[in-house]
Order: sequence, then C-alpha cells, then structure tokens
Amino acid sequence: MSVNWNARFSTMARERLDSSFIAEMIKLVVENQAISFTAGEPSTELFPLEGLAASARNAFRNPDLFSYYPFDEGLLGLREWIVGWMRADGLLPEWVSAKNVFLTNGSQEGINLVTEALIDEGDLIALEDPTYPEAFLNFARQGARFVSAAVDKEGILPDSLEKVLRENRVKFLYTIVSFQNPRGCTAPTERRRQVLELCRKFDVVILEDDPYHYLRFEGDVPESYLRLAGDDARVLYLGSFSKIVAPGLRCGWVVAPPEIMSTLNHLRVSNVIGLPAFSQYILFDFLKDLDLAPYFEHLQKAYRTRRDALVAALERHVVPLGLSFDIPEGGFFLWGRIPGLNDMVRFARFAVETEKIGIIPGTIFFPTKGKGLDTIRFSFAKVTPEIAEEGALRLARALRTFTPGEA
Amino acid sequence: MSVNWNARFSTMARERLDSSFIAEMIKLVVENQAISFTAGEPSTELFPLEGLAASARNAFRNPDLFSYYPFDEGLLGLREWIVGWMRADGLLPEWVSAKNVFLTNGSQEGINLVTEALIDEGDLIALEDPTYPEAFLNFARQGARFVSAAVDKEGILPDSLEKVLRENRVKFLYTIVSFQNPRGCTAPTERRRQVLELCRKFDVVILEDDPYHYLRFEGDVPESYLRLAGDDARVLYLGSFSKIVAPGLRCGWVVAPPEIMSTLNHLRVSNVIGLPAFSQYILFDFLKDLDLAPYFEHLQKAYRTRRDALVAALERHVVPLGLSFDIPEGGFFLWGRIPGLNDMVRFARFAVETEKIGIIPGTIFFPTKGKGLDTIRFSFAKVTPEIAEEGALRLARALRTFTPGEA
Repeated sequence: MSVNWNARFSTMARERLDSSFIAEMIKLVVENQAISFTAGEPSTELFPLEGLAASARNAFRNPDLFSYYPFDEGLLGLREWIVGWMRADGLLPEWVSAKNVFLTNGSQEGINLVTEALIDEGDLIALEDPTYPEAFLNFARQGARFVSAAVDKEGILPDSLEKVLRENRVKFLYTIVSFQNPRGCTAPTERRRQVLELCRKFDVVILEDDPYHYLRFEGDVPESYLRLAGDDARVLYLGSFSKIVAPGLRCGWVVAPPEIMSTLNHLRVSNVIGLPAFSQYILFDFLKDLDLAPYFEHLQKAYRTRRDALVAALERHVVPLGLSFDIPEGGFFLWGRIPGLNDMVRFARFAVETEKIGIIPGTIFFPTKGKGLDTIRFSFAKVTPEIAEEGALRLARALRTFTPGEA
Repeated sequence: MSVNWNARFSTMARERLDSSFIAEMIKLVVENQAISFTAGEPSTELFPLEGLAASARNAFRNPDLFSYYPFDEGLLGLREWIVGWMRADGLLPEWVSAKNVFLTNGSQEGINLVTEALIDEGDLIALEDPTYPEAFLNFARQGARFVSAAVDKEGILPDSLEKVLRENRVKFLYTIVSFQNPRGCTAPTERRRQVLELCRKFDVVILEDDPYHYLRFEGDVPESYLRLAGDDARVLYLGSFSKIVAPGLRCGWVVAPPEIMSTLNHLRVSNVIGLPAFSQYILFDFLKDLDLAPYFEHLQKAYRTRRDALVAALERHVVPLGLSFDIPEGGFFLWGRIPGLNDMVRFARFAVETEKIGIIPGTIFFPTKGKGLDTIRFSFAKVTPEIAEEGALRLARALRTFTPGEA
C-alpha cells in the first residue's frame, strides 16, 4: 500500500496551480502532426549556433565557470555588457550600473522572484487585459488577485487605469511594452508618460516586461518606462535573450534598484543556489564580439517576411470568413477576432484535430474567465510563407466545417 | 525622490529570508586571501572538462536543444541514463522509471520544489541536528517550523525520532544520508530500517538527500531509503552531479512517485518555464560513454588522499590543543569539537582575519540557535596535503592567540 501524497500537498499545490493551455495546445499540435500558428518561440534556423559553439569552446578553457559562481547576480561580464548595450540604446536611466543587473533563468524566473519579493496572499496586481498567462499563473500561485486595465492598439488606456488605481490598492502594474503578447501592440512614449504619471500619483510600481524589444520591423522606438521613471526608480525591467538568441540558453535579466537586488539575491540562493555561469559566459563571449546592427537586421527581416506572409495568407483565405486582425510593427504575434465565433477554445481543439492546424484561443490570455471568447492569437515566429499559406487554407476549411455550440 | 521599495516587500522577503553564513565566511576567505577549510565544493582540477567540452560540441549539432524543451521533467536521455545507473547500483525500488525522474538546477531546486509542493506556513519538518543550512533556510522561507532528532555517528537516533514524531505532526523528515553535511556520518542499513519503520508508524514521508553517495572511500554502502521503502513510495530522493561532475553545470534530480511528479512539473513551469536542455545533454552525452568504475575510483582516491592529509595535519598541530573529530568514510567533511571554546563564530572571524585560515563554525548547522557552540566543520574537498599542513599550523596559532569572550 503506498502513501497518499495528494493528502499532503500545500495550499499552493492544491489550490493555486493551473495548467498552461498553451502547453496543452502545443502537445495537441505535436500529437496531431499539425501545422502550427501557436508557438511564441523563435525559429531554430535563426539561432546563431556556430558563434555560440565557438564561445562554448572558450568557456571550457575556464574551469572556474564550472564551480559555484561567487556572484549571486550572475556573470559580471555579461551584466556589464547588458548595461553598455541598453545604455547605448537609450533604455537606461543614469543610476543603472552592472550592480543593478540580475541574470535569470529566462524572464519567467525574474517574474517569479519579483512576485516572491513583493506579493503576499490577497495582494492586488494590475494587468493588461489580455496579457501573458504564464505571468498571471505565477502571480496567482503566490496568492495574488488581479484588477485589469482596458487596452487599445496603443496599450493601456489611462482612464481605465486611473479608475482601477483609484478604487484598489495595487502592489504593481505588470505590462508587456513592445509587441505585447498576445495583442501585438506597443504603447507609444506619450501613452507611457500618462501611465507612469498615474503610477506616481497612486504610488504604484511597474514591472516592465520587454522580451520583444529588439524585434521591431518598422516604426519608432518608444522610451522605456525604466528610463522615463528616472531617479524615481519605480520600475523593474525584465529583458530576455530567449527571442533574440535562443530560449534554450535560459537567460534573461532584471534591472532593479539597489534595495530590491539583495532580496532577489537572497531568494535565488534559497531557490537554486545559483545559475550555470558557463552558459552565461557562452552568451557573453558570443555577444561581446558581435556586430549588433546587422545581427538584428537579419532577425527583423526574417520575422517581417513571416509576418507579411501570414498577413497575406489570412487576408486571402480567412478574412473573407469574418476574421479581422491588427498588424503589429514587430514581435511574434497577430491578434485576431472572428465575431460570432464564441467558443474559440472548442474551435481550437477542433481545428487541430480535424484540419491539423494549431491556433491559440484568445480567451486564455484574459485573467478573468469568459472574456475575449471570439479572439485568436496567431504566432508567425516559426511560420514560413509556405506554411502560412497552407495553414490559412486549413483554418478556412476548419471554420467552414465547424459547428458552433451554444454560446 | 525615489520609491520606498522596503515598504513593499512580502512577508517572505521581510521575515523569512536569512543570509547564508557559509557565503559570508567564503567572502571573508577571499577578502583576506586566506587558506580555506570552508568550501563544500569539488576541486576544479577534478572536473572532466575535456570530456564535457567534446559533448558540448555534440550538443551544438542539435538545434532543438536550444529551443524550449518540450518535457518539463528535463532531457529524456539523461533521465533514462540515471534510472539505469541507479538501478545497477541497487538504489531503486521496482516502480521507478524515467517517468519518475525530474531534473533540477542542482539539489537546491529539488529542495525548493518539494517544499513548495508540501509546506504551508506553520507546518513542521523533522531535521537532523545539525544539518545543511541552505535546506532549512529554504524550509523557513516557505514558513515551516522545525523539530530536530538527535544524531550520533550512525545518523538519526531512533528513540529521539520516535519522541519527536509522537509529540508532533510532522510533514516530512529531511535527512542527508551519506557523509552527512556537516557531521560526515552515514546511517547504516539497520539504522535506516528503524527510522523508516518509525516514519511508517507515524505516516511521515522522507526527503532523502544523497549528493555524496558516490564519494565513498571505504566501508559498505547502505541501502537507500528509496529502495527500502519499496512500494510504500514514501521517499523523495535527491541526487546531484555537483559533487561528482561539476557544480557549475547546475544539474541534480529528484526521484518521485507519480502523484508528485505533475505538481513538480507545474511548479517548475510557473517558476522558470524550464531548464537549459543543452546543458543536460552535455552531461548525458558525457556520461553515456563513460567507464564509471575508474572514473569514481579516481575521484575517491583524490578525496581520500585529502581527507588523510587533513586528518594527519590536524592530529599533529590542533588535536594537542584540544580538538577532537570523527573520521568520515567519504564525502567532503570532518566534524570537530574544541571543548571549552564556546564562541566559535567569533573565533572563525578571528582566525580568517589574523591567521588567514577559514573554517566554518558548527553552530550555523543547527536550526535552533545556541547549539553546537564549540563545534567546527572542516571541508577537505579543495585542500591539498600542503594546504592541510599550512592550514593546521595557522589554525593552531589562531587558537593559541585567541582570547575567548564571555561564554
């Protein structure tokens, strides 16, 4: 007779964990050998593996990288490189130095550590509606509750945010600032100023998540909240190499004021002791000699081509069936709507199982259940023009044969 | 004027985080350019870097390893290899397959995920007294309280454990089973049977931490709690490559029954999405072709030589001044006592600052403050015979010149 483990789980494990629907859809895609518009991850053929392999050879010449690394914040060289890079791009206020950069196992570790540092059970977090589910699943895991500000094509609506902040005592605002996941939208500088002003007025801090920043195909780069806040230092900035180098390196970073750095360090030592310095070194060694402008141009061109091909294919085959969508200036995502199709979750399962085409129903990006029932997120990151065409055809067939249930 | 971050911290961040004294001592060692008996980490010259570098070259031929890895548990090949290896060594009960192996960012991630899965604020954990501080600091972070069972040279004393379990409702027993950190002791099979019987009687589960298992220099290998428990499946086993390959790879594993695997998966996705599959692949590719017997013999011989040299040097120079200690059959640690020297924390600071010799005061390994005031942990892992001699001389000088304070 074996032990009853289920009776021993913590409140967190019993009540606050939720599955990732994205992960479920990706599994369905694999099982059905489907074409996929699902994955918000970069395309493997764009990984700079030759350069990374050369840098890995250099890493193995340095045995200390394979010990416990003495700085909890992560490899000093990479942290210094990040500061130089972000400063050159105008993203940083004066006070930031390498002491304010904390390397993470991808942005998710940054989200998790910030949540652990700031959130008690019952605390409120203000979110964009819709937003990235793995973030709010993590917030919920720590016991947070949510209030949402409405968004339009230019990000958070100040009037909506003001109402939310006036009526609730909010711990922080979580915002994905460039080519937002899932909506693809970017808040221009002027909108950010308004949002920041409201956060100052109600003394709310901001968690600025910016993994797609360097994947801009066109249009102007707005100022970061981090820079706009200046000496006020009310912004924690999350960056990531997952979308611009390779997600499997598991490297992102947090820019944070001194008071919070020691807490992040403590939490990380408690969670995992430290991260692999050798993989941070591989990134550092690769980046320090890289000519960044042509590197990013190459990525931007590749993803722009994919965006344009998916837009064209959807316009040819799916827009005539009722789809509308916004065209983003960068990133990985198109956000669409099919008015009248109010059971998109069931449709997504139907489409992958019958026509072998994967999409993500938009409703899962809303922390409040029952919103965005007729919305879809398309990712073009791994979609070649040929796949875009075939996928759009399949999606159109699925739409023609799907029988909507009771709304 | 900048934001007041300190006013925003969570209860966890404000009340439940404690610094690692070991980390503080290691910093003092570096600052004072001291000789060190402090570090519980393997010696860099024993890292198999050539083999790992060759395996890294193979990893870079496989672009999928640099994507998000589809299995939350980690690289399937390495999990299968671990099962074959542990089974051949008699550590596994029948029910374990690769489905029950969960790769971690070192054992500490395993400790953290198990704590998150099982511990609510106020829950009790039974510990060995003394034990590994990073473990109980993590437990405390999640809100656990502790009860301690007394230990002797053969591990936990059954009478003491029975009293503890009778008087308290304990969530789990945490035990380091081989060459315990800090006491260097190993419970023989018969003692483990008694402990397991008590855990069955009081329906307590066991977290078996075994990072030093393969560093045995002499004596018989006892059976694992995991194997002894059999179909009862009340044991979570923590393994690690940190001490036998290299800690900077950040790879350990948990063996767990099916009910708990999905919770570990959920928690990990929420914490960090996933770990770097390419570094797991490097380990797998290196291990799969390795002739294990001579590999471990080489390590065992190297560490045995270091143990013997440190024992001899301490016997020559420090035992005459009152030190007594146990001689472990493996691992990294000697546990000593200097009766009458009741402010070892102050002595440790004095020794590193005046005589440039680092030791860890034993009291920090006791979850209850004020215990083990006259105890010391010596690590011989990075101590060559020459350093052992010079370090023992310095320690003797420090003991002669130290003025004990009020006890």
